Amino acid sequence: MASIIQPRVLKGFRDFLPETEIQRRGITKILEEQFRFFGFVPIDTPILEYTEVLLGKGGGETDKQVYRFEDHGGRDVAMRFDLTVPFARFMAAHVNELYLPFKRYHMAKVFRGENTQRGRYREFMQCDFDIVGTDTTSADFEILTMMHDSFHALGVSGVTIRLSHRGVFNRFLAHRGIAENSADILRTVDKLSKIGAEAVLDMLIEIAGEENARAVLEYIGARGDFSTVLSTMEALAGGEAEDTRRLKELKEAMEQCGISESFVLDPSITRGLDYYTGVVFETFLDELPQIGSVCSGGRYNNLASLYTKQELPGVGASIGLDRLMAALEEIGSAGRDEASVEAMVLYMDDQGVGDFHAFARRLRKAGIRAEVYPESRKLGAQFGFAEKKGAMAAVLLGEDERKSGTVTVKDLAARKNHEGLAPEEAIELVKKLTKKERH
Amino acid sequence: MASIIQPRVLKGFRDFLPETEIQRRGITKILEEQFRFFGFVPIDTPILEYTEVLLGKGGGETDKQVYRFEDHGGRDVAMRFDLTVPFARFMAAHVNELYLPFKRYHMAKVFRGENTQRGRYREFMQCDFDIVGTDTTSADFEILTMMHDSFHALGVSGVTIRLSHRGVFNRFLAHRGIAENSADILRTVDKLSKIGAEAVLDMLIEIAGEENARAVLEYIGARGDFSTVLSTMEALAGGEAEDTRRLKELKEAMEQCGISESFVLDPSITRGLDYYTGVVFETFLDELPQIGSVCSGGRYNNLASLYTKQELPGVGASIGLDRLMAALEEIGSAGRDEASVEAMVLYMDDQGVGDFHAFARRLRKAGIRAEVYPESRKLGAQFGFAEKKGAMAAVLLGEDERKSGTVTVKDLAARKNHEGLAPEEAIELVKKLTKKERH
Repeated sequence: MASIIQPRVLKGFRDFLPETEIQRRGITKILEEQFRFFGFVPIDTPILEYTEVLLGKGGGETDKQVYRFEDHGGRDVAMRFDLTVPFARFMAAHVNELYLPFKRYHMAKVFRGENTQRGRYREFMQCDFDIVGTDTTSADFEILTMMHDSFHALGVSGVTIRLSHRGVFNRFLAHRGIAENSADILRTVDKLSKIGAEAVLDMLIEIAGEENARAVLEYIGARGDFSTVLSTMEALAGGEAEDTRRLKELKEAMEQCGISESFVLDPSITRGLDYYTGVVFETFLDELPQIGSVCSGGRYNNLASLYTKQELPGVGASIGLDRLMAALEEIGSAGRDEASVEAMVLYMDDQGVGDFHAFARRLRKAGIRAEVYPESRKLGAQFGFAEKKGAMAAVLLGEDERKSGTVTVKDLAARKNHEGLAPEEAIELVKKLTKKERH
Repeated sequence: MASIIQPRVLKGFRDFLPETEIQRRGITKILEEQFRFFGFVPIDTPILEYTEVLLGKGGGETDKQVYRFEDHGGRDVAMRFDLTVPFARFMAAHVNELYLPFKRYHMAKVFRGENTQRGRYREFMQCDFDIVGTDTTSADFEILTMMHDSFHALGVSGVTIRLSHRGVFNRFLAHRGIAENSADILRTVDKLSKIGAEAVLDMLIEIAGEENARAVLEYIGARGDFSTVLSTMEALAGGEAEDTRRLKELKEAMEQCGISESFVLDPSITRGLDYYTGVVFETFLDELPQIGSVCSGGRYNNLASLYTKQELPGVGASIGLDRLMAALEEIGSAGRDEASVEAMVLYMDDQGVGDFHAFARRLRKAGIRAEVYPESRKLGAQFGFAEKKGAMAAVLLGEDERKSGTVTVKDLAARKNHEGLAPEEAIELVKKLTKKERH
């Protein structure tokens, strides 16, 4: 006999057992419903692409983490490491088949050979949504309001979306004459929450001198209500302009929609990436601020410049579903599904198999998740199995019941039998018992 | 400026544009709802696994098609090529955390570097469902009835599930003294529908001599109603036994559940794989028999022998979702979703942005998929956009409406304006217009 192969998975990869997978699907279902309510539509792209398409011609930091190999045909291929790059390629390839402005979402697995010591997974799920082909307050606002509504739909009421505008920040840097250090400054400012203000100040002094460094800290440190902070930003950036007007309009729309209490204007939000050009934002759960942003994004002025000369401005955000799932688990919100099964039809004897299944069919038609215990076993064991799977009712169709045309239903919570029921009565009772817990 | 990278995808890989992706999600949603009704629960496994785990220690036919490479840590890894092998590994790894009998489904992408000339994809989606840990008529029947109900739920009424039993076939071969040629005979018989009876006969003569070859053809050629065919099988296999009793019990349960007209006992169904030991089945759409089976499977007596010494008998089936999608598209069934969006709130002027969004929120709360056109553009172009996305109503909140607190709704199908509506009236009208098409 051949030796046994150890059934192990790769480091950084996971099996999803039913409980977790049900939770994951519950969350994606809620998000998807919200997105569809806003007129967003789903797309999908291949997991495997040409390496050149995914990595471009340069070689950045992420490149080392990419799963890359030569396929059967000698092609240099790689597994996608995010959903942004494939979306850019997708838009360039299909822009003529789509209607602009185009609103899409994409929930899918991505792969990075990261250091698992840092608690990172190598296979994880992302959820991106964008509006491409327009640059307006309305589009910016739609992304922000959809984020707000999605978290509410997930049962997270305490959510704060901190936003700012990269255009104002760039104007501020230019106003101080340090625009050419923009990339270094952005990278440094982005570390604020991780390393603290003093360490950031030291680094900024290195980059731009003490006076400028203190000014940058003043800018990103501005606090207060929306208008106060906006005034500070305007003053430090050299006055009002298109970018600050955009922020003002966003604030007005938030108020009109009654959702402004969830938004904070926070100039320390800059997002490290060069990519962003307009509004930028991060989302924090009030109960778990320490886990960091669960949904981040911003406006960019050209999505697909690597693949097409057509300009495609857009605004969008990304949710790290694994981190969000862990957070929801911790705060006990949403995504907790229904039981695996609601009613268990017991296996009484070999002669009744057809009857068990026929009755299970009737239960399903009545909207009840019903399964038939598949083999002969002591009733106690079958009750135990039913409870483990979360069933609230057991249905007994023994020889006596079958002869008399009646049904016995056991209320598994109360451990009480209801005997001699007509089939219709039994179905009504099961319905009552199984729906009880949901309300 | 850097040169443009061509936004191409790998041969055998595809982008899913919204229309197709919405259809795909519609189909998986319907299937998933059915599976949950039967008490099946979802799992997921990694796309990337140790090559040894996926391919075992031998080297079969499929091995050449597997995407296999060395990862950053020098591990020999491969992308999954089906969902059966990962499920076997999963069960071996987690059997102690699960309840047996365990019912799971798994819908996910798999990868094979197949010859695309044959119209095959290299990335495609499978849907597997199994009951593991029991060997009974009841479990076999549950898989069969769930297949039946799932296709009905998809809107395919004309479906025929052809089934047989590998145990009876094996007994028949033993009865004729040709059991040792079993593998060759199975492989040959499995080609019947592709190459025809004469070619099969020639090949069988090579394998087992003329007399046996004709007997095999007689066995697999048996036709008629369930009982007639069962009698022929019994006679040729040397009489009644456990295996033929299983078939008889299945037939009885089908009758009790009123679904027997969808099932045909067909001894030519053997499934080429050595793997199966009991009931085997294939599913054909009555309107499109030429596309072959859209859902196949059977009973096996040991799922995970590669990874554990614990015996795990089971029964299950697999749906090729891509082929099924193409078929449903052709026969015009199911999975056709709702419009991308139902109501479009038009962009009248820059001053109204907050009002447009506030009204869209009210529409969504009333259960309507509503989006705000994001930028200033001629009304005609906005109407055209709304229609392209499938909206049935447009909402106009111009300066006049905003001043008077009224709403104008345009019925896009009838091209008729309804002016001066109170907001609540407008919502009711939009509801009416957008739900119309569904009934």
